[in-house]
Amino acid sequence: MAVTKDSIIKALSTVDDPDFKKDLVTLNMIQDVSIDGNAVYFTVVLTTPACPLKEIIKNDCINAIHQQVDKDLQVFPNMTSNVTSTRSTAPLLPNVRNIIAIGSGKGGVGKSTVTANLAVSLAQQGAKVGLIDADIFGPSIPTMFNCEAEQPEVKQVNGKNIIVPIEQYGIKLISIGFLTPPDNAVVWRGPMASSALKQFIGDTDWGELDYLLIDLPPGTSDIHLTLVQTIPVTGAVVVTTPQKVALADAKKAIGMFKQPQINVPILGLVENMAYFTPAELPDNKYFIFGEGGGYKMSEEYDIPFLGQMPLVQSIRESGDSGYPTAMKEGPSADAFKDLAQKLARQVAIRNASIAGTKTVEMTS
Amino acid sequence: MAVTKDSIIKALSTVDDPDFKKDLVTLNMIQDVSIDGNAVYFTVVLTTPACPLKEIIKNDCINAIHQQVDKDLQVFPNMTSNVTSTRSTAPLLPNVRNIIAIGSGKGGVGKSTVTANLAVSLAQQGAKVGLIDADIFGPSIPTMFNCEAEQPEVKQVNGKNIIVPIEQYGIKLISIGFLTPPDNAVVWRGPMASSALKQFIGDTDWGELDYLLIDLPPGTSDIHLTLVQTIPVTGAVVVTTPQKVALADAKKAIGMFKQPQINVPILGLVENMAYFTPAELPDNKYFIFGEGGGYKMSEEYDIPFLGQMPLVQSIRESGDSGYPTAMKEGPSADAFKDLAQKLARQVAIRNASIAGTKTVEMTS
Repeated sequence: MAVTKDSIIKALSTVDDPDFKKDLVTLNMIQDVSIDGNAVYFTVVLTTPACPLKEIIKNDCINAIHQQVDKDLQVFPNMTSNVTSTRSTAPLLPNVRNIIAIGSGKGGVGKSTVTANLAVSLAQQGAKVGLIDADIFGPSIPTMFNCEAEQPEVKQVNGKNIIVPIEQYGIKLISIGFLTPPDNAVVWRGPMASSALKQFIGDTDWGELDYLLIDLPPGTSDIHLTLVQTIPVTGAVVVTTPQKVALADAKKAIGMFKQPQINVPILGLVENMAYFTPAELPDNKYFIFGEGGGYKMSEEYDIPFLGQMPLVQSIRESGDSGYPTAMKEGPSADAFKDLAQKLARQVAIRNASIAGTKTVEMTS
Repeated sequence: MAVTKDSIIKALSTVDDPDFKKDLVTLNMIQDVSIDGNAVYFTVVLTTPACPLKEIIKNDCINAIHQQVDKDLQVFPNMTSNVTSTRSTAPLLPNVRNIIAIGSGKGGVGKSTVTANLAVSLAQQGAKVGLIDADIFGPSIPTMFNCEAEQPEVKQVNGKNIIVPIEQYGIKLISIGFLTPPDNAVVWRGPMASSALKQFIGDTDWGELDYLLIDLPPGTSDIHLTLVQTIPVTGAVVVTTPQKVALADAKKAIGMFKQPQINVPILGLVENMAYFTPAELPDNKYFIFGEGGGYKMSEEYDIPFLGQMPLVQSIRESGDSGYPTAMKEGPSADAFKDLAQKLARQVAIRNASIAGTKTVEMTS
């Protein structure tokens, strides 16, 4: 077969994206095909820089061209991404492509640790990431990002005060912890807390982002209602431990997101503190909080299972010291990379299959 | 010395209560002295049935009589208790002698586990105990007491609906979990949650209690403000893990109770999940969440340190299965007995030294 743009495109139209079950050409993922002697260049535009299928798709493209056009061609796919969104016409933050709420129902299951590491891992893979610490009464994000002493600047835009998020490790961050002294309790009733969250969303200079993660507080109350009433949320992640009382609260969180009037798609479930392995007994898994409860729940509720994170002392230490474990090399960082990729994939699947989430009307 | 009532009382007036630094006679703790031949009988009225000094005081009494009256007397002290209170003139629940709020700031530190086991341990030592699960959005108490399917009866008293608490293991319990289906999220803004708590306090038939424990939700918001605005609270216990982000939130909880307008005395701090010991390596302590942070904080804030509870799989399993570990025999039950005694002692010291807490005025 003659080596022409058309023959290359025809070959690539036999390569399917495994998630979307359609070929790359139909999906508009192939751009800038060019041929220079024996070399073929083209760009594959993935739906996320954290695409877990990147290598598979790349190899499938090369193989298709070798098999269907010429086995001696040198094929140079340029793997890029353009994160998909259902939010481009949203009234608030249309330049934030995806808003992901991370909840748990129960506190202390490691929701902030998971959120911080997901943010770092997504950013390391090339995504533009922001993080709102919506836990007004127990903000952990400033500690986990080693920026407890930072104070955000405020600038005037069209006569309005706009908060400039703190940028740390390439991630834009906002937290009540930046605005109040660490030892002071913020003893507020719901409306005050809700108004802080509204400022974090609407009066903060987020710019363009691929993913804005929102670390929710425990429970299912004011902050949660305010979030879904303020802005359309792309989807939610639920974090749990295998412990029965944590699973019970995770069910409540799932129940909240699934309520017909709230209706936020659930992108997946993370089982945290799944087991503990002491350094001296690397083959022993201590299921301190019970075994496999998160996985079972994801099956029962038909929710994607994003992964099982062990209880690792170094993950906790990294959080306490302000350098999320995902920034380091090793099995914990790899596990979070895998988690981030699975989440990014679910976001892309969600965007391709469901219309944008609607803001919940203010009835309660 | 002749054996007379007076000589017995004189001898007992040399025995000090180590906590109150006064003698038992001055403290009105000696009653019903009688002599029958060679036998001496009297009643020692302690400030709590869970008095950790019970055996010491008993032996001190016997020794004082042997040394100062007659070494051949048979001495039979009857150790009883009358739990002290600063609440006998309170407008709401004057028959509840002590109301103890158990908070943490951060969720998931084991607050409900500690509360459930404290309740069981106090009851086992002879106290009348009630427990309000004030975690409206993540009630764990029904699971921990194996009574998830129970539904409280409602009776009419003076034309008002009064909830009859569920009684399990000798403890009176109330929880939103008894009133809503387990999978349903209670998605309420603060005022609805506050009104549930007010019912649990004011519209529930608590009868006479020595200790009413209140398992608070994480955070420092509506429920916490409603509690201190509804009823004078005897004191608060703060539970934390040694993890930095948990300690940070525990500081916020302490800060809340210490706010001048709230001003609830802090009875003590519990460090939970202090370390993990695998059964195969009984000498190894894994400080998964960090080492000694709770103790250090209690020193820094000058708060009684009630104890350090290890992360023990059986404690979690007991909670999930509905039989608190304090009901069983073994080191975990002993540790909770010790914790309960230390708490009861701090309540007695608080009642002897500080006037009753005032209800907070409704300003926020």
